Formats: sequence, C-alpha cells, structure tokens
Amino acid sequence: SHSIDLAVIPGDGIGQEVVAEGLKVLAAVLPQDVKLETKEYDFGATRYHATGETLTDADLDSLKGHDAILLGAIGDPSVPSGVLERGFLLKLRFAFDHHVNLRPSKLLPGVATPLAGQPEIDFVVVREGTEGPYTGNGGTIRKGTPHEVATEVSVNTAYGVERVVRDAFARAQARPRKKLTLVHKNNVLTFAGHLWTNIFNAVAAEFPEVTTDYLHVDAATIFLVTDPARFDVIVTDNLFGDIITDLAAAVSGGIGVAASGNINPSGEFPSMFEPVHGSAPDIAGQGKADPTATVLSVALLLRHLGYEAEAGRIEEAVSADLTERGDAVRTTAEIGDALAVRVAS
Amino acid sequence: SHSIDLAVIPGDGIGQEVVAEGLKVLAAVLPQDVKLETKEYDFGATRYHATGETLTDADLDSLKGHDAILLGAIGDPSVPSGVLERGFLLKLRFAFDHHVNLRPSKLLPGVATPLAGQPEIDFVVVREGTEGPYTGNGGTIRKGTPHEVATEVSVNTAYGVERVVRDAFARAQARPRKKLTLVHKNNVLTFAGHLWTNIFNAVAAEFPEVTTDYLHVDAATIFLVTDPARFDVIVTDNLFGDIITDLAAAVSGGIGVAASGNINPSGEFPSMFEPVHGSAPDIAGQGKADPTATVLSVALLLRHLGYEAEAGRIEEAVSADLTERGDAVRTTAEIGDALAVRVAS
Ligand SMILES: CC(C)[C@H](C(=O)O)[C@@H](O)C(=O)O
Ligand SMILES: CC(C)[C@H](C(=O)O)[C@@H](O)C(=O)O
Repeated sequence: SHSIDLAVIPGDGIGQEVVAEGLKVLAAVLPQDVKLETKEYDFGATRYHATGETLTDADLDSLKGHDAILLGAIGDPSVPSGVLERGFLLKLRFAFDHHVNLRPSKLLPGVATPLAGQPEIDFVVVREGTEGPYTGNGGTIRKGTPHEVATEVSVNTAYGVERVVRDAFARAQARPRKKLTLVHKNNVLTFAGHLWTNIFNAVAAEFPEVTTDYLHVDAATIFLVTDPARFDVIVTDNLFGDIITDLAAAVSGGIGVAASGNINPSGEFPSMFEPVHGSAPDIAGQGKADPTATVLSVALLLRHLGYEAEAGRIEEAVSADLTERGDAVRTTAEIGDALAVRVAS
Repeated sequence: SHSIDLAVIPGDGIGQEVVAEGLKVLAAVLPQDVKLETKEYDFGATRYHATGETLTDADLDSLKGHDAILLGAIGDPSVPSGVLERGFLLKLRFAFDHHVNLRPSKLLPGVATPLAGQPEIDFVVVREGTEGPYTGNGGTIRKGTPHEVATEVSVNTAYGVERVVRDAFARAQARPRKKLTLVHKNNVLTFAGHLWTNIFNAVAAEFPEVTTDYLHVDAATIFLVTDPARFDVIVTDNLFGDIITDLAAAVSGGIGVAASGNINPSGEFPSMFEPVHGSAPDIAGQGKADPTATVLSVALLLRHLGYEAEAGRIEEAVSADLTERGDAVRTTAEIGDALAVRVAS
C-alpha cells in the first residue's frame, strides 16, 4: 500500500503533546511516495464533559474505515474512575477485537533502570486483550449497604485463548531465542488455569522448536526483577498482562519508553497503537512528557502495516537517542525533533 | 498464657528443614516458664499420595484445638497443580477464616536487593485472605472442546472488605508514618473496585490521623521498584496481594526472608504462620534452604500470641545476622543455630 489513512486520537493530558511528536517522526520516516492522511478525533474527558459521550456507534463506524489508530492517552481526574476506561479504551479494544496486546520491553545500554547491574532485558509480552476479568461481567447487589456483594467474572474461551497463544508461539518461533513463557495462576484459578495450560501445551506440540516455560504470575514478578534475561516471549491473560507489563516497563527504562499495540491480526478492524503510560495530568501542557513511548508505538504501527524498514529505522533512532542523550533535560518537542532528524537521515 | 500449644506442619520439600530451625529458635527464645507443646501433622504430598486426602474435617477439628499453626511449605511437582493449593492451603485459610494475610517487607542494611541504590523499604501488606478470585467460584463448560468456556468469579462482600480495611487502618495508625495505600484496579474491575474504594473512604473518616493513598495494581508494581519508600501499610485484595507481596519480597531481600501470617484476629480459630516461599523441591534435603523466613514467621506467631518482647528479640537477631553475615555460605542448620544463639543471649 502506498498510502496510510490514520485515525489520530490525542486524548487527554500529555496525549496531545506526545502524539504531535509521534506524527512528526512518522512524517519524517515515510518515503516521499507514501501518502499519509490523518484524521483527528476528539475523544476523551473534554468531549465527555461536553456531550456525555465516550464512544458512540457512529464513532466506531467512522474509526473502522482507517488503516490504523494512533492514541495518546485517555483519562482525567475530573471524570469518575472507570468511565473513560470502560467507556472508551476497553470499549474500543473489545469492539475492534484487539485480542493481541503487544508490549515489547528492551533495556537499552545507558538507559536508567531501577535494577542494579544493568541486566539484559529484551522480551515481548503478548497480553490477551478481549477476555479475562476485563469483560465487565459481574455486578453488585445491595449496593452501599453492609450486605453489599460485588462480583467480577473472568471469562476465558478456548477460541479466545487459542488464538492469542498461537500468535505468541509464532512470535517466539520468529525470534532468535525461540522461548515462550506462559504466565498464569493455574494453582488457584484452576478453571481458567486449566484452559490456558491445556491449550498452551496443545499448541506447543505444533511448535517443536519453541522452548516453553510456565510461571505463576506472582513468581513472574520476582523473575522480572531478579532475572529478566530469562524472558523472551511471554503470553498471559488480560489482567496479569496489565500488571506485569507495567512492571516490565518500569525495569526496562520506565513507562516513558514503553510502547504497545492493540492488534487485530485478521485486519477485520484497524489496530490501535498507544504508549503504555497514561495522561499524566500533573505534567500536561508543560513540554515535559517523553514522547519516546509514542514514537515507539508508531514503529509498531508501521510494522503492523508492513513498513518493516521504517519501523526498524525508528527503533534504531530511539536506541541511538537514548544511548547518547546524556544528562541534558529536553522538552517533548526537542526529543521529537531529534528523533525526526535521525529517522530522516 | 504460660503455655503454647502449637500445630506444626512441616509439609513438603524444604518445609521440613526450615520448620526444624523455626522450632529451634522458638525454643531458644521462650522464657523457661512458658511450656511449649507441639504436635506434628503430616499434611502434604506424601500423605496425599498415600491416602488421597489433603485436609479432612477430622483434621480441621484436630487443628482447631491449637493456639496457632506453624507451616513450612506445601506443594510438590508429583501432585497436579491446584490439588494441594486448593485442597489444603486455601481450604485451611478459608475454614479458619484467615482474613488478614499479613506480609511485612523490610530491607535490612547490607542485605542484597535487585534494586540499585539500596532504597529504604519498610512496609507491610495486609492482604485479604478469604474472598476475591480465590473463592473457587466459577467453572468450566464444554471442557476440552474448541467451545470450552472457563470462568473465575471474584466475590467481594462489604463484610469481608470492611473488616480487613479496618484492620489495615488500625495497623497504619499504630505505625510512626501512619500511611495506608489501597491497591486495586477500580478503573477496570468497577464492581469490586467501587466496593473496596467506598469502604476504604468510609473507614478513613474514622482514622483522621492516617494519610491515605490509592494506586492501581499495575502502578503499584512500578512504585515497588522505583520508589518503595512511599509505602507504609498497603491493603489489597487476595489476588493483588498475592502478586505484589512476591514482588515486595523480591525487592526487600528475597523470598528467603519473607514471612507471613494468616490471621484470624477474633481468635475463633487458630492463626497460621508460614514463609512466603514454597517447597522448592529442587533444593530440598540438601541443607541449602534459608530458614530465615520461617524464623521471622515464628516472630509473627509470637507477636500474635502476645509475646511481643520475644518477637522483637527474634527480629533483632535476624537483623543482626543478616547485616553481619558477610559472604559465608551457611547451611540451613547453621543459620538456625546462629539465630538460636542470638535470641537466647
Ligand atoms: C487504563 C486501563 C484501562 C488500561 C488497562 O488496564 O488495560 C491500562 O492500564 C493499560 O495497561 O493499557
Ligand atoms: C501457593 C498459593 C496457593 C499461595 C497463594 O496464591 O496465596 C502462595 O502463592 C502464597 O502467596 O501464599
């Protein structure tokens, strides 16, 4: 394809600033003959306050027509917790069947980490994105009384687990180390745990070259800080993936550099790419936000659309920038400019 | 009370070795006039293989008569995942209503941590122990077919949440920093999240001296590695508590030194004390296991039974031992001996 039709959702807080830099780098890396069209959408707290809407059917119809979506961040303290998360972010992931939530972690030389001894970190988490405790199943009875009962139901299907496990095996197979770790809690969550474990073992038989491993989620958090080098590809459920990818981001350079893709591999719906960090209202509008995570999300977006060389150029530019940046404090735009120059040259 | 009637469950793997040292230190620290009676129980993998039993009603009746329970570890690869966890460990926590699962984390000077810069770490996690996704609610349909659906139901009650939140506030109130952080995921798990958040805020009004904070579980894992000093007391649900206490152990000296109490504050049933680590079958029987976590669990046990001075002596002995131990490799018994000498003097 020689054109990219991109939906852009800057969103709330620092979302605006980081997306501007992501688009700057995208424009700089694309060959002249690729036509880039962008359409900006005003989702987020401001629109919610003005209209009460988070994401309508008409919005979904409109988004559906794009090749991909770039999102900054959604969320603001002025909106009650859960409204934008369930009403926008999760609604979009579910509506567009973003079942592969891809979150790479790579600690680059010279990049600060809270871990001692600068360990080797280079793995990718494949987080299931459409099932588990994220489905919104559950409810409340006797709300606000001393007899209230609230439930949350984790829903796991063979269909949903198999497709994400298969995707993770394929990714592991394509990497030099070819190792896949299933993270779950199958000794306690035995119903879902058996489903995940059985499917993992069944699919493993089709990928004899891939070394497999299993860790309970609690043990996985230990190894993420004591021996992150043991991980190559991790596959896990929606909630465990949420938790361990924030920890993974923290140890491998911080959420300022953690990118993610919410992918629909079939292409039936556009995939969405977003930094793992949130809207950080405390530093919004001050040019302090690090746009690197958004720029790396643009690289994932380009790879997804088949622009492998351009994705690689962005990743190399970020590596070089992070490794060489020294102690200088730079603004959001300065980092974006530096990356745009690197990818263009 | 001038006698302690203790149920001892060495269990599997290294459980036998570490419990022996725990009892050694307990005997050494107790004043002459306190009569210590112990009764050993053979729960675990061996009994399961011989009889098919994990924990019978008669067992529970027998355990009920003791003042407290000291447990080493339960679990062996020869037993399918979940059988001993659900059939013994969780069954006991639920049967004896161990709703306060207490897990202190303190990084002592000189103790190795995977974190750079030897941060200050001194907090305690109050993990709910009888609800959440641990209840075993849920099920499977069409098992083993491509149409399998497996669910896990997190059950949360006002009764269950309030009592553990209240316990955590009281603990925070009694500590110098008086700070309590609620960890949940109330932006996604909105039913349970609202229950936890509302009760937390309501109880907070009764503890005006306690500073409160809220973190999503994913963000909490970040702060546990980037700024663990921000934590004083944490209260959280059963599953989030499982995950963050393993991470907390990892950053504050490792699971070799992480103690826990499964507490029934009313005293209606005996409380159980156990190291956070498991049975570690790979190093069992070799005298390699660190008994420190079990010894610290004995301190929690003594404090629970009102032996505050003795609990403090054990904790001081462990501090001194960890700080002064240097690089010498010591056996399980050597560590136990050293601690027994310290607490006796
Ligand atoms: C904001 C929230 C709904 C979201 C999640 O829990 O998935 C975020 O934490 C993430 O990881 O993308
Ligand atoms: C063994 C398992 C059932 C247990 C739990 O999940 O609670 C363990 O991980 C723990 O933290 O005590």
